[in-house]
Amino acid sequence: MSRVLVTGAGGFIGRHTLQPLLGAGFEVHALTSGEPPGGAPAAVRWHHGDLLEPDCARELAGAIEPTHLLHLAWFLKPPEHLTAEVNLDWVAASLRLLRAFGEAGGRRALLAGTYAEYGSGPSVHCVEDETPIHPAELYSAAKHGLHTIAAAWAQQTGVALAWARIFNVYGPHEHPTSLVGAVARALLRGEEMPTSDGSQVRDYLYASELAGALTALLRSDATGSFNIASGIPVAVAEVIAAIAAETGRPELVRLGALPRRPGEPGRLTADVRRLRESTGWSPSIGLREGAALTVDWWKALA
Amino acid sequence: MSRVLVTGAGGFIGRHTLQPLLGAGFEVHALTSGEPPGGAPAAVRWHHGDLLEPDCARELAGAIEPTHLLHLAWFLKPPEHLTAEVNLDWVAASLRLLRAFGEAGGRRALLAGTYAEYGSGPSVHCVEDETPIHPAELYSAAKHGLHTIAAAWAQQTGVALAWARIFNVYGPHEHPTSLVGAVARALLRGEEMPTSDGSQVRDYLYASELAGALTALLRSDATGSFNIASGIPVAVAEVIAAIAAETGRPELVRLGALPRRPGEPGRLTADVRRLRESTGWSPSIGLREGAALTVDWWKALA
Repeated sequence: MSRVLVTGAGGFIGRHTLQPLLGAGFEVHALTSGEPPGGAPAAVRWHHGDLLEPDCARELAGAIEPTHLLHLAWFLKPPEHLTAEVNLDWVAASLRLLRAFGEAGGRRALLAGTYAEYGSGPSVHCVEDETPIHPAELYSAAKHGLHTIAAAWAQQTGVALAWARIFNVYGPHEHPTSLVGAVARALLRGEEMPTSDGSQVRDYLYASELAGALTALLRSDATGSFNIASGIPVAVAEVIAAIAAETGRPELVRLGALPRRPGEPGRLTADVRRLRESTGWSPSIGLREGAALTVDWWKALA
Repeated sequence: MSRVLVTGAGGFIGRHTLQPLLGAGFEVHALTSGEPPGGAPAAVRWHHGDLLEPDCARELAGAIEPTHLLHLAWFLKPPEHLTAEVNLDWVAASLRLLRAFGEAGGRRALLAGTYAEYGSGPSVHCVEDETPIHPAELYSAAKHGLHTIAAAWAQQTGVALAWARIFNVYGPHEHPTSLVGAVARALLRGEEMPTSDGSQVRDYLYASELAGALTALLRSDATGSFNIASGIPVAVAEVIAAIAAETGRPELVRLGALPRRPGEPGRLTADVRRLRESTGWSPSIGLREGAALTVDWWKALA
């Protein structure tokens, strides 16, 4: 029996992973520092704990003896998390978690990294182990530093470690200050929504698709860094337009009313060959369908 | 008044730094988890504490309010430290220390990295920000991951951070299982000393010279990574021969009796232009003088 411990299971990405993990045959142990979220599958076994507490990981891993680890917990609140000093605490907490997982007999771990580990510049097509790494903010530096350390730890302990460089994600349960969440909420309330010109090209993946990709990667035996993305570049303006169309109030978007962030790349896209070759996974929900599902969710919440 | 907090001040490198730091005009606060070492300059103010304890750094930094930090403390015991899991704890402890230093008003920090952050291969001439980084062991990966995170933290907090990639060092107070220490001790006892063939080319720096270089770098306003080394490549066999000659028993060395470590580079040398241009420092104690001082010290200890 494969038992997976999912950290951050009550968060945006975490809650989407529970159903695919159960579907893949895992006994799913979900850790949250808050209340278990409503609507989660009944078969999930919930645990309450805060990984920032020194003994949490050891007690949890000892009690569960997970064979697999999906570590998603971190401080994520756009844009504060980019510079918050608690990023340092999450590095320490993640290292404690890995050790505890290894000591409890864990065999395979998948940890969440970020596309922001890659360098910035006018145009970056991100290829694992080729594209230079230049994390610009504390958040991405903390993630990348953690990966450097975790990979060496895994190599010497024999734990199979994969690192998920997650690109842009949108969908139900996203933080309301994220771009997609903010656009959906503003337009559903009938408020104007100022945005940048939206000419930035990115990779956007619908949240349940991301969960499917993470599950496929966790089930595989592949190790190393993996871009987790659709592989389909899209202008941010197209994403905004898709969300806006679903709200029925596209005229409220003020494209170009805000400046772009200084230093932000014009194109930042993902090479997904390694992910596809290692897992066979590819996305099936396109932008239009994803936008409809996302706006429906924000509507139901309003 | 500049106040420096030196961590690991009772260790091999730390104790050599105390005199040069005093000489440079610092009020020197020295942290050790053991007893203050004998023979330290009287002007040093000693503090007792273990940075692996969660509150140690915050209490210490709050009490001292250091303007400068020289962070040398780590678990170092050849060869165990290369793979010890406590490396992970030292990453966490170092991040706590940096935060505490920043919160207490600290302005400039110098942290100890290692030449082992650089890639391995048959021949590596290490140039900062040019030579690829490929830490091979947990120790060097932990150091490098820490640097990635610390550099981003420093950039956003405004603390000036320099990272010292320390190459081979020898001298009084070195760990007895280190190569130079082991050769000196064996020969002084009249025992045979098996070694590798010694054809590896490295950069060896006498310990008090290293301390001078670190002091010069701490006093400068330079930030980034710095190779700390003599800049003078030497075959390991020459180092062994210099030590052996000083003991008077060179015939006890069994050069080539041991294999070289698998994957060990044949040449691993340091480019020191950045250090020299930033600090004006250059070494003045050559191998012969350094070997004599080192063997004298082991003699006095025996």
